[in-house]
Amino acid sequence: MTYCVGMLLDAGIVCLSDSRTNAGVDHINSFRKLNVFERPGERVMVLMTAGNLAITQAIVTMLNERLSSTEGTSLWSVPNLFEAARHVGDTIRDVHRRDAESLQAFGIDFSASLILAGQIRGERPRLFNIYAAGNFIEATPETPYFQIGESKYGKPIIDRVITRGTSLDEATKCALISMDSTIRSNLSVGLPLDLALIRTDECRIARHRSIESQDPYFSIVRSEWGQALRDAFNALPNPDWSRD
Amino acid sequence: MTYCVGMLLDAGIVCLSDSRTNAGVDHINSFRKLNVFERPGERVMVLMTAGNLAITQAIVTMLNERLSSTEGTSLWSVPNLFEAARHVGDTIRDVHRRDAESLQAFGIDFSASLILAGQIRGERPRLFNIYAAGNFIEATPETPYFQIGESKYGKPIIDRVITRGTSLDEATKCALISMDSTIRSNLSVGLPLDLALIRTDECRIARHRSIESQDPYFSIVRSEWGQALRDAFNALPNPDWSRD
Repeated sequence: MTYCVGMLLDAGIVCLSDSRTNAGVDHINSFRKLNVFERPGERVMVLMTAGNLAITQAIVTMLNERLSSTEGTSLWSVPNLFEAARHVGDTIRDVHRRDAESLQAFGIDFSASLILAGQIRGERPRLFNIYAAGNFIEATPETPYFQIGESKYGKPIIDRVITRGTSLDEATKCALISMDSTIRSNLSVGLPLDLALIRTDECRIARHRSIESQDPYFSIVRSEWGQALRDAFNALPNPDWSRD
Repeated sequence: MTYCVGMLLDAGIVCLSDSRTNAGVDHINSFRKLNVFERPGERVMVLMTAGNLAITQAIVTMLNERLSSTEGTSLWSVPNLFEAARHVGDTIRDVHRRDAESLQAFGIDFSASLILAGQIRGERPRLFNIYAAGNFIEATPETPYFQIGESKYGKPIIDRVITRGTSLDEATKCALISMDSTIRSNLSVGLPLDLALIRTDECRIARHRSIESQDPYFSIVRSEWGQALRDAFNALPNPDWSRD
């Protein structure tokens, strides 16, 4: 399983993914699910993937191959993020044409869900959720984030905290709390984490960090958030229905 | 959709369910999903249901019919909660025998998931999760609660707070917070709520309350928990990776 979240804020973009993939509990590996495409100062894109690893790896590999090909569209040649999302969608459809039938013969669904976030010089930062069919939706001011994979455990805290005005640091904190809640509830989501931050109009990665279990700040989040939550819980009054 | 949670504590039992059922967004109704079987002082059982409404209603109706029949097993005649869970499981299998094939003809799964909680004089309070196949599991000291239906959004707060030693009032507060988080994240879970409390060794319902949107305490939970969560979030330090 996978959990990835991408947040689009006035201040920039926060992308966080886990790296656990498993084909059954006895075959657990770590794979990067957060891919960076960057020409510092001109364009930066972060692509996070969930779903069948063979499929998502094929998609990312084909996207990388197209970067180095001289003809045809690539993430280096697209003029804006919308065209980048279309290019990723077309690549998903190419993989589908190649693999879907064979997968079906083995009863395997063609499952893939992607988050594309970034900025190309000349337009604002943008955030897309791209589906297995190659179609996609873009985040609006009312939806400052997208999640893919095991998204439910970590959703309430984001809904309570994140707005477009949230700072990058606070959004990072929220993403890590959301990930911690997910890891606690689903063993198939696991460390290390990949974190990427983009500041609006820099068109480059401001921070790309791999977070291991001994990461000092994530350790603080893991230990202190649980206690903070219990303290908040205890501060809330108990029901007083004695007058019923 | 449905969300029900049953908690088994040293102090007793907390059962909370929503009452929203929908067959498509244009056909939304409220149905009770929390059923009480009580002979005060001798036995008390709470049965909560999730899944296909026609199936779960048939199960509850057959359980009620068997209460008034003179021969055969019923929830009045079973000697303990384990036998009560078996009786509910057998009733599910009777409904399955009658309906499953016809449902399959329409491509409808036989979906039903139940929580049975209660106490029969002479044994301790017990909590069971009963599946569509009629088999079931019982809560152990390590698992003080079961959820059915849309369980993920409301799970983290329970995992952080609930132990067997939690008081009935605190567990009620936690169940309502868990329900609030679920309602905020899934429109198909909705008010009114059904709450039932049982105190250990009373073998009766200590409180059975229908919670509407204007319920004073639930309104406090809804308004104050969000703020308490944001305060706890703000109190947690932001990442300081400036030294990287």
